[in-house]
Amino acid sequence: MKILLDAMGGDNAPDATIKGAVAAINEIEAELVLIGKKDIIEAKSEEFFGKTLEEISDRITIHNAEEEIEMEDIPTQAIKNKKDSSMVVGFNMLKLGEGDVFISAGNSGALLTGATLLVGRIKGVDRPALAGILPAYHGKLVLMDCGANTNCKPINLLQFAQMSSIYIHNTLGIENPKIGLLNIGTEETKGNDLVKNSYQLLKKYSSELNINFAGNIEGREAFLGEIDAIVADGFTGNVFLKSVEGLGKFVKKSLKESMMHNILSKIASIPSLPSIKRFAKSVDYKEYGGALFLGVQKPVVKAHGSSDEKLFKFTIKQAEQFVNNKAVDKLTEIYESNENKEKMQEIKEFITKIENKE
Amino acid sequence: MKILLDAMGGDNAPDATIKGAVAAINEIEAELVLIGKKDIIEAKSEEFFGKTLEEISDRITIHNAEEEIEMEDIPTQAIKNKKDSSMVVGFNMLKLGEGDVFISAGNSGALLTGATLLVGRIKGVDRPALAGILPAYHGKLVLMDCGANTNCKPINLLQFAQMSSIYIHNTLGIENPKIGLLNIGTEETKGNDLVKNSYQLLKKYSSELNINFAGNIEGREAFLGEIDAIVADGFTGNVFLKSVEGLGKFVKKSLKESMMHNILSKIASIPSLPSIKRFAKSVDYKEYGGALFLGVQKPVVKAHGSSDEKLFKFTIKQAEQFVNNKAVDKLTEIYESNENKEKMQEIKEFITKIENKE
Repeated sequence: MKILLDAMGGDNAPDATIKGAVAAINEIEAELVLIGKKDIIEAKSEEFFGKTLEEISDRITIHNAEEEIEMEDIPTQAIKNKKDSSMVVGFNMLKLGEGDVFISAGNSGALLTGATLLVGRIKGVDRPALAGILPAYHGKLVLMDCGANTNCKPINLLQFAQMSSIYIHNTLGIENPKIGLLNIGTEETKGNDLVKNSYQLLKKYSSELNINFAGNIEGREAFLGEIDAIVADGFTGNVFLKSVEGLGKFVKKSLKESMMHNILSKIASIPSLPSIKRFAKSVDYKEYGGALFLGVQKPVVKAHGSSDEKLFKFTIKQAEQFVNNKAVDKLTEIYESNENKEKMQEIKEFITKIENKE
Repeated sequence: MKILLDAMGGDNAPDATIKGAVAAINEIEAELVLIGKKDIIEAKSEEFFGKTLEEISDRITIHNAEEEIEMEDIPTQAIKNKKDSSMVVGFNMLKLGEGDVFISAGNSGALLTGATLLVGRIKGVDRPALAGILPAYHGKLVLMDCGANTNCKPINLLQFAQMSSIYIHNTLGIENPKIGLLNIGTEETKGNDLVKNSYQLLKKYSSELNINFAGNIEGREAFLGEIDAIVADGFTGNVFLKSVEGLGKFVKKSLKESMMHNILSKIASIPSLPSIKRFAKSVDYKEYGGALFLGVQKPVVKAHGSSDEKLFKFTIKQAEQFVNNKAVDKLTEIYESNENKEKMQEIKEFITKIENKE
């Protein structure tokens, strides 16, 4: 297996990508290809470790790419014009089979555009979307879409439910994972037009598509471990994700201040530090890595833009697992089956009928 | 001052409303009127305290109302047909000046419908909305709309920004409060159509409307104490609110488990319990009470549906402050001024022009 890593992508690149790669290499079996400016990467490696990456491990190589896609670049233009950027080179290698998975922490818009344009959608998937894995009470919670599609239709949310179901079954080994629809109440009549219509679609077609639909889920119930995935349009999903990150930060800051309140509380907190650390780890979203871009023909992982060494290491390990679990193969097999194609056709006709009625 | 309390509204009513009223009465100066089934309220009071409410305080009275609006009632029908329900009676008393503020933890849809239909909007406010007060790092964060309007237009978000600004200035005494627009990125080009258009409107008209517009705010930055209010449509705002509540619950559960991990960590946690308690209090959304329905002609407070005795007590105290701060008077004065009316007219013409261009 070969993991392709965009060495120039993210706020802390290339320092964090290089350090993350070195930290990960002894914990994975795959080869690792860093894509970016070879001179810079080699100089940095000498600076950090006193030797070249190839001297550190024969499973790390560098693939030169002279350009970079910047955070402020316009996605479609960047993908079209920066042919020798680390991101475009990475996608082309993935497409040609010169690697099994591509990881980047760079410009999110460009990553999604590039994956769709250069790697291509799985036939039958209308909109690929980002599936993120969050910590939940005694388990994990998949959130899809984390932010790829700001405007969605009910058919998209139905497919997000189907894709996350297949993904969870294949990677986490959960039989009939429970999929909830992110809403502001549990009743059928709650929500905006998009979620109301998506609810109707999920209710009608879930069992035929092997989705274990758990109905509407409010954000406050999402983390209690009762569901395995939550689906939403990319705008709402991203608001959800970032609120949770925001509160996580606030919680850590407040907890630290409570402990450091005065000299007595400082001393008092010493014996419980191991517990506090265990707790802090359980709410640290950095422990939970990148989001998978599900619905494209090859595995693409969007790493957190602010990833540091530790998070790149984690995301690289996660990418290896993702390839091993063959979730993309399974998604492709199901979506390209005649049965699923016919079902999607039927669903789209049903939607047209509903919309004409309104 | 007279505070009107819907004694029958909420998951824990009337037990929690009665106990909350008794707990609050010595910490407020206002009179308190419990609206609901007199027989039941009196019997409960005897049961809980061994005496009638009037014997407990001469500032507590009961106003009889024979009907109740249930959680599953359809809002408009309930408000129209249940004329002798505690909620409709409460609104009518508020309208007639027989009370200064109305609090209810009952059916949210009915509360918002009743407030708009029976009490009436402030002229010039297109959509009243719920302003909630959340804890933030070293301060408070106002969120508007918490969930009253699931589908919004840019003019609504502009008015939410203006109303929350006036409200914060009047009640929290903050000069030029900073108002952010809830979005999934900080750049102007980010977000769905609603927030993109709202951004343009806020950018163009903020200074003329005395709004200190801080631009787009991501959920993860919202709690860091850098802004005073965040505006969103009611669907997105409610998702934000409930995600935060959900993570709060998960955090508390995880923290408790980390502490109770084994006998050693249990013993170790004893000295730091005061710190932990201080922390738990800072993330307890129950400490932060009800949401104010801003944009109607009289003060209306929506208490949390699952309010317990403690939260009703807090919300009653909050309602008293709300009346004392005269935020509704100030909102009315500004919105009914010719200057603001003309400005709103101009803004609406601008929106029409923009929409026709698209």
